[in-house]
Amino acid sequence: MVTVIESISEMREFIKQVKLQNKRVGFVPTMGALHEGHLTLMREAQSVSDIVVASIFVNPTQFGPNEDYDAYPRTWQEDITACQRAGVDVVFRPRVVDMYPEGWGTWISVEQVTEKLCGQTRPGHFRGVATVVTKLFNIVQPDKAFFGQKDAQQVVVLMKMVRDLNMNVEIVMVPIVRDEDGLAKSSRNTYLTADQRTAALVLSCSLAFAQQLVRQGQRDVDFIRNEVQGKIGAEPLANVEYVEIYSFPELQEVRTVSGKVLLAVAVKFGATRLIDNIILEAKE
Amino acid sequence: MVTVIESISEMREFIKQVKLQNKRVGFVPTMGALHEGHLTLMREAQSVSDIVVASIFVNPTQFGPNEDYDAYPRTWQEDITACQRAGVDVVFRPRVVDMYPEGWGTWISVEQVTEKLCGQTRPGHFRGVATVVTKLFNIVQPDKAFFGQKDAQQVVVLMKMVRDLNMNVEIVMVPIVRDEDGLAKSSRNTYLTADQRTAALVLSCSLAFAQQLVRQGQRDVDFIRNEVQGKIGAEPLANVEYVEIYSFPELQEVRTVSGKVLLAVAVKFGATRLIDNIILEAKE
Repeated sequence: MVTVIESISEMREFIKQVKLQNKRVGFVPTMGALHEGHLTLMREAQSVSDIVVASIFVNPTQFGPNEDYDAYPRTWQEDITACQRAGVDVVFRPRVVDMYPEGWGTWISVEQVTEKLCGQTRPGHFRGVATVVTKLFNIVQPDKAFFGQKDAQQVVVLMKMVRDLNMNVEIVMVPIVRDEDGLAKSSRNTYLTADQRTAALVLSCSLAFAQQLVRQGQRDVDFIRNEVQGKIGAEPLANVEYVEIYSFPELQEVRTVSGKVLLAVAVKFGATRLIDNIILEAKE
Repeated sequence: MVTVIESISEMREFIKQVKLQNKRVGFVPTMGALHEGHLTLMREAQSVSDIVVASIFVNPTQFGPNEDYDAYPRTWQEDITACQRAGVDVVFRPRVVDMYPEGWGTWISVEQVTEKLCGQTRPGHFRGVATVVTKLFNIVQPDKAFFGQKDAQQVVVLMKMVRDLNMNVEIVMVPIVRDEDGLAKSSRNTYLTADQRTAALVLSCSLAFAQQLVRQGQRDVDFIRNEVQGKIGAEPLANVEYVEIYSFPELQEVRTVSGKVLLAVAVKFGATRLIDNIILEAKE
């Protein structure tokens, strides 16, 4: 039976006991509205940890003023059942007022890798992510923490933060989980109309196409980006925010595909903003 | 015999072993040039910990571009002897290039309490302090960390950081240590000429005078501040940067002395900037 802990001090006390037994703690931070992507993270954590903690916390500091904090799906009953099935031992569900009490104000800012991609249209987003993840890490003290490649830039930011601040945790990136037709799992997919849902398949299709290009020997970053941009742009319901290629995990500008590069896209379908990505690797 | 560790990974390994033995770690971060103030911190740590770690690291990120990073006194041989005498078990002396490698860039910013007092003339100073202390905390994982009241604002900033980020460490503030004539111990006192050294006594004298005023029933913050400002201003070699009174430890503006308030001063003698402070408490 999964245990639910809401109090920060109770969570600390639980972890203290776990640490005294020298057990390995795996941690999956989430905002709830759990889907197969999250459950994959939990199962992955379960396979390499003695204790799995998942947090469910819709973090206000990573939403912009015009973003969907209030509308973000909250499905607590389904989430707790899903956690239990996925082998989670403890669900940590702190209250906003305990995480950000009156007078709170200390921020973690990761430079460079936060400024591009989603950072351009979501100023402050990664500062909010880095800050809440640091707080959760300090409370849960995991040996390993699991994040989905779906939010690839988030993974890059957190890996840099952990390295730069000498944190005692390993960030594990888990591959994207997709619906059978290719759409990347996302809590925000529930916002899509049927037509938008169909149109959104252009994302995974164009990423797969780019992978084919690289497999066929294409190495020119501009060429690949233009092809992907063209394909997505041809979908009438799609409104491209960015199609970008950077080295991975450094997120440096590159002109040719060599080693690992991240092809990442952000596209709006109506008011719903979806992201997707693929890591391309040139094998000479 | 005190052990010196220069490598971050060796320090981590040492701490890992210590933690497995369930020992309490006390930590004294310093920039070296140790004086009796530091040694008091170390003895205090020693009295409540199983293992005492002191770090000696002149942290470049807390010095402004026109400050004394290069000139800051470095007295390694004396420091190591002093640490040994004070009961330190391990001196951690990381290299700048290991703490801030190529491409490094993640900062901790504490809001509000960093903007007043020394924050006005030393922009970025407390960001550098909060960041390096976080890094050192993550490496050394202390149960308690010891800081001198001499840098009272630094203590306030670090206490807020620890609380806001849910860090697993207790910040212990240790009273100011003074020379027999009253001058607060500081590594920067070595910069003073004999005349400046004498003139600088006006700091501790005026703080003691303020304490007398409060003991005699004076509660008016403006009155006390003006008295102190007048006394220091009357010293020809003194160049006042600030004389301020705030609630402690919140650093909120106050008009009357009630509960604990911090009277803090920053004064230049020639090119040497000294700070001093006293916590005044109204006992009704």
